Amino acid sequence: MPVCVTDIERVAPALVQRFDGAEVATTHECQGRKGLLAPYMSPIYRPAKIAGPAVTCSVAPGDNWMLHVAVEQCQPGDVLVVAPTSPCDDGYFGDLLATSLKARGVIGLIIDAGVRDTATLTEMGFPVWSKSIHSQGCVKETVGNVNIPLVCAGALINPGDLIVADADGVVVVRREEAADVADKIDTRVANEEAKRLRFEAGELGLDVYDMRQRLADKGLRYVKTLQDA
Amino acid sequence: MPVCVTDIERVAPALVQRFDGAEVATTHECQGRKGLLAPYMSPIYRPAKIAGPAVTCSVAPGDNWMLHVAVEQCQPGDVLVVAPTSPCDDGYFGDLLATSLKARGVIGLIIDAGVRDTATLTEMGFPVWSKSIHSQGCVKETVGNVNIPLVCAGALINPGDLIVADADGVVVVRREEAADVADKIDTRVANEEAKRLRFEAGELGLDVYDMRQRLADKGLRYVKTLQDA
Amino acid sequence: MPVCVTDIERVAPALVQRFDGAEVATTHECQGRKGLLAPYMSPIYRPAKIAGPAVTCSVAPGDNWMLHVAVEQCQPGDVLVVAPTSPCDDGYFGDLLATSLKARGVIGLIIDAGVRDTATLTEMGFPVWSKSIHSQGCVKETVGNVNIPLVCAGALINPGDLIVADADGVVVVRREEAADVADKIDTRVANEEAKRLRFEAGELGLDVYDMRQRLADKGLRYVKTLQDA
Amino acid sequence: MPVCVTDIERVAPALVQRFDGAEVATTHECQGRKGLLAPYMSPIYRPAKIAGPAVTCSVAPGDNWMLHVAVEQCQPGDVLVVAPTSPCDDGYFGDLLATSLKARGVIGLIIDAGVRDTATLTEMGFPVWSKSIHSQGCVKETVGNVNIPLVCAGALINPGDLIVADADGVVVVRREEAADVADKIDTRVANEEAKRLRFEAGELGLDVYDMRQRLADKGLRYVKTLQDA
Amino acid sequence: MPVCVTDIERVAPALVQRFDGAEVATTHECQGRKGLLAPYMSPIYRPAKIAGPAVTCSVAPGDNWMLHVAVEQCQPGDVLVVAPTSPCDDGYFGDLLATSLKARGVIGLIIDAGVRDTATLTEMGFPVWSKSIHSQGCVKETVGNVNIPLVCAGALINPGDLIVADADGVVVVRREEAADVADKIDTRVANEEAKRLRFEAGELGLDVYDMRQRLADKGLRYVKTLQDA
Amino acid sequence: MPVCVTDIERVAPALVQRFDGAEVATTHECQGRKGLLAPYMSPIYRPAKIAGPAVTCSVAPGDNWMLHVAVEQCQPGDVLVVAPTSPCDDGYFGDLLATSLKARGVIGLIIDAGVRDTATLTEMGFPVWSKSIHSQGCVKETVGNVNIPLVCAGALINPGDLIVADADGVVVVRREEAADVADKIDTRVANEEAKRLRFEAGELGLDVYDMRQRLADKGLRYVKTLQDA
Repeated sequence: MPVCVTDIERVAPALVQRFDGAEVATTHECQGRKGLLAPYMSPIYRPAKIAGPAVTCSVAPGDNWMLHVAVEQCQPGDVLVVAPTSPCDDGYFGDLLATSLKARGVIGLIIDAGVRDTATLTEMGFPVWSKSIHSQGCVKETVGNVNIPLVCAGALINPGDLIVADADGVVVVRREEAADVADKIDTRVANEEAKRLRFEAGELGLDVYDMRQRLADKGLRYVKTLQDA
Repeated sequence: MPVCVTDIERVAPALVQRFDGAEVATTHECQGRKGLLAPYMSPIYRPAKIAGPAVTCSVAPGDNWMLHVAVEQCQPGDVLVVAPTSPCDDGYFGDLLATSLKARGVIGLIIDAGVRDTATLTEMGFPVWSKSIHSQGCVKETVGNVNIPLVCAGALINPGDLIVADADGVVVVRREEAADVADKIDTRVANEEAKRLRFEAGELGLDVYDMRQRLADKGLRYVKTLQDA
Repeated sequence: MPVCVTDIERVAPALVQRFDGAEVATTHECQGRKGLLAPYMSPIYRPAKIAGPAVTCSVAPGDNWMLHVAVEQCQPGDVLVVAPTSPCDDGYFGDLLATSLKARGVIGLIIDAGVRDTATLTEMGFPVWSKSIHSQGCVKETVGNVNIPLVCAGALINPGDLIVADADGVVVVRREEAADVADKIDTRVANEEAKRLRFEAGELGLDVYDMRQRLADKGLRYVKTLQDA
Repeated sequence: MPVCVTDIERVAPALVQRFDGAEVATTHECQGRKGLLAPYMSPIYRPAKIAGPAVTCSVAPGDNWMLHVAVEQCQPGDVLVVAPTSPCDDGYFGDLLATSLKARGVIGLIIDAGVRDTATLTEMGFPVWSKSIHSQGCVKETVGNVNIPLVCAGALINPGDLIVADADGVVVVRREEAADVADKIDTRVANEEAKRLRFEAGELGLDVYDMRQRLADKGLRYVKTLQDA
Repeated sequence: MPVCVTDIERVAPALVQRFDGAEVATTHECQGRKGLLAPYMSPIYRPAKIAGPAVTCSVAPGDNWMLHVAVEQCQPGDVLVVAPTSPCDDGYFGDLLATSLKARGVIGLIIDAGVRDTATLTEMGFPVWSKSIHSQGCVKETVGNVNIPLVCAGALINPGDLIVADADGVVVVRREEAADVADKIDTRVANEEAKRLRFEAGELGLDVYDMRQRLADKGLRYVKTLQDA
Repeated sequence: MPVCVTDIERVAPALVQRFDGAEVATTHECQGRKGLLAPYMSPIYRPAKIAGPAVTCSVAPGDNWMLHVAVEQCQPGDVLVVAPTSPCDDGYFGDLLATSLKARGVIGLIIDAGVRDTATLTEMGFPVWSKSIHSQGCVKETVGNVNIPLVCAGALINPGDLIVADADGVVVVRREEAADVADKIDTRVANEEAKRLRFEAGELGLDVYDMRQRLADKGLRYVKTLQDA
């Protein structure tokens, strides 16, 4: 039975704010290398960077009816996440839906399918990460589900989970793990900053990370020419 | 027998002008969702937008000889449409051919294969929609056909048909249907403008399109939590 | 046995300079249409253009340990070339490694795999040609090889060979052939410049290249309409 | 307006029979290398070989309703040809539709989308050439068109045209050209048979086709070792 | 922290048995068109058909160490399900691991990556559904997780869930829903059998499913020729 | 300048024989995981297994002229290896060329492009590993090279190198390294046979390879349920 779930628990706004400067790659590392969406998900324009709680929308292939149901469930700061129940590149989303989302304060769209009107979306400054750009429109015949857990571009996303997206792609952070991940990001960023200074000063990763002995132990040999090998 | 057809009937200039502001997605909708080229056809730079009659060119894989034959058939305002007889990503087209086309007033190229010299083409402002970017050049050994009907990126294109291309892709409009499609676009654009204002004011698609009853009829239920479903 | 070769012979700096203005497509033509990397290798930002000797690095899938070994072997003006031993889209390279390479004077990266931190790399102005953009990081468990001949995106690259990369892709020039190729490029560029002027003046390729008779010999016929064919 | 065209002119049965032994590759050559469907179209089992007139069916993505309309238009010996209006891999067709088609004497299906129940179809001996095998089913909400010209896997197919399919793929022959193509196939097959005997006897293509002089004219040199080149 | 979960609740054997004759397509329909793995998952030989509870194994790209951990957790009748944490085509699995699994009574492997030794696996009669066939082996350096929920080829799979795989692909049924799905399959199969008899007798789907009026309501028109449309 | 090299040094027949029973996966492992061709290279029928010295042929895209030059260079036991200079799926090879190769004792074809007449090739028992099956034929206009080193499906192949191909794919062994690799295969096969017996007897890889302590050292924990983790 198709449902629209109306009361979802969102990752808290104060927590979302902590991810404002966080990169997708860093976030992914800091939660143990999980939650990354497939690399074919790419932004329609660059640069673009968002972080916010997910409102999820499961749709039939070639049918964007449920997006209108999903819009009503969105609050300011939300990210709309759309996945078809079978692979589809059709253009589910264009400038009118973007206008409606923007009016509600939604900050971006993640869709494992196609979008259109990308020139207008770029002018509007409404960021989208999608599988494809395609003018092929949709029908409005089949009901789907809003705010159920779904798999989008290979990653499981629950409604209310935190979505972080930037030039490198998209990652999902479980709502209950977001505070812990934010802490780890803070530590890592400080740590990386120190390393960056050493690299800028010309130090080598071999020394910064103390790799030379371990490489020798694994059998790496230095030779002058290939003939010496 | 390979032929070059010299007298083709083009969609009239006054009609072409009516598509100057028309988007590919809108055009596609207004002609009953047909005529769209495959979504892998993408512009080498953004933004880019053209509309003009097609001069068609059917080529052998890896052989761009016929492009020179096609150039001579082009008139100011034309769009050159090239399709190989079997899938090929080679670079059929570069800055010299672009210089030649530009000198004749041609406004863009649609090619179901590769192009090269894309940095120079971008500087020249000569827009190309292609399947790939590839430096691999072509030979000039096999004759093909100019101004015959051909299938380009999955769509049938007749010489003289109207091509519309923008950031979202490429669509073909039959010459005989262009006036009717232009009328429908005018109506739709006016209609969409009214809707956009309602969306900007915060109205929902559910109400703008009067969808609530039909969704309920199809079985959609609203529940507070997934456990209630 | 994994090795790191320390003494490689690089294409001479004076020779590299001759390729500063050379396009990938032109270089490819002038060396007899060989040495082109697969067309999926694309720059993370445009415009970008580099030419320099290759330091090569062969890595295990999902393992970027050897990149740190390779960095130490790089000299100012070098291009780092990385290829996994089996297909992989993981993000082997990010802003810290770029900082380290930049500090050593390396001018760019060619990698038949993924990169991340592309927003920062773009700000830094460190150009990368890659197979994909992917936040998925790597482990550091398996040693590979530095400065051995390897196949990268379908092309054989020896350490010290010349790499030329631009908006159209990447090409490798054998160190021993670089002088000869540079000569041919000079000739071709001069020749193309003359042709460009003729094309700009409205001359046709059919006449510039004297193609009409040969086309007729191959059977091309001009007809007024398709019915005449 | 969606239509089902009921009176189509089929390629004559006596003509179809002449293609019973004809291979797709031979047919393609004999009609001037045109009409081939994309190479991703492959048979669900091997060996399989059919030839018959096309009944065409244009469907919405993910919607197989029109197949039932098309079945009624089929006659014994027909081949059903299905193409979605935008790319789709869903399973439009399974054992029940195959049972229905078989009962009407239809000899096979060509579909630029997915099929399912392939184990049962194989047992039934009902051959299908498809883009994919996928269990994902379809809805029945949108009407399409039957017996209109359509593009299937990159080739234009008119209702009544001749379809030939075998282990190598699928080719379409225009109804009006079928007799001429059949004549050319007869000639070519006889010609190839004579050549096959010469090849079996150990003669070389270089001599059978008299290629040596032309190769030398094009610059081919024979050298003992690569160092001699 | 990497874990191996030892006590998982499996779908009951009596329930598994009810799926012995069930096809993937039917199972997918009967659970509301969900749970299907991506269509690129295909069997290494045909015919092949299995049903059994999942033991899940999450692995690093190019690293098959955890498969040995997973083998110990398998019981007779189990299906091993393997997914890498980022896309990978390497050959994680060959004849020795198959020998080990077979000795424990495991009935098949589902892997969103590559396998090798497929000739031997075919002789052994050990069925595998995989993304690719690839001889590239793996390292054993990184620990992963056994019996955690994972996403395999786009579908969420919990340990103990029921896996059904056949010539058409792979579907997962939630452990708690398996009984209900089995009931629906029984009903549907009986229903389809009755329909098959009607189709074999020459009845049309248009009548069996009573579609004619609804098609007319949606605007479908029958015309003799396209000119009448 | 295009050349045909006539005197190549082949891996010795006695050495080739040692690979008769060797699998591609085993061969690949025994030479340090190098030399594997891309996994898209697949046999047109199964089972198929060959080992023999390579005669190499570099061709233009869509042009199979040089295959006739290559045939003359082949000796009994040879494997013909063909690679286009840019990606191409055209059908370079069919039953007549197979008849010619068979008459010369050639045992198989490896081609990084398409083949056709696959039904006849299967009947003839002439094995082919290819990138695709495609009826699209080739022209004979451009000369290429025979018996030069080339990159085929991502692997460097020298004329005279040993090719091993089976159901899992294709691997190349350097002529100079073949004896050493054969020795390692003998050792490995004996070793694997012993392990297979242990696995058949129900022993676990964890014990056969003594992995338990190392897994614990890397942090793997066994827990009864996920809640314990």
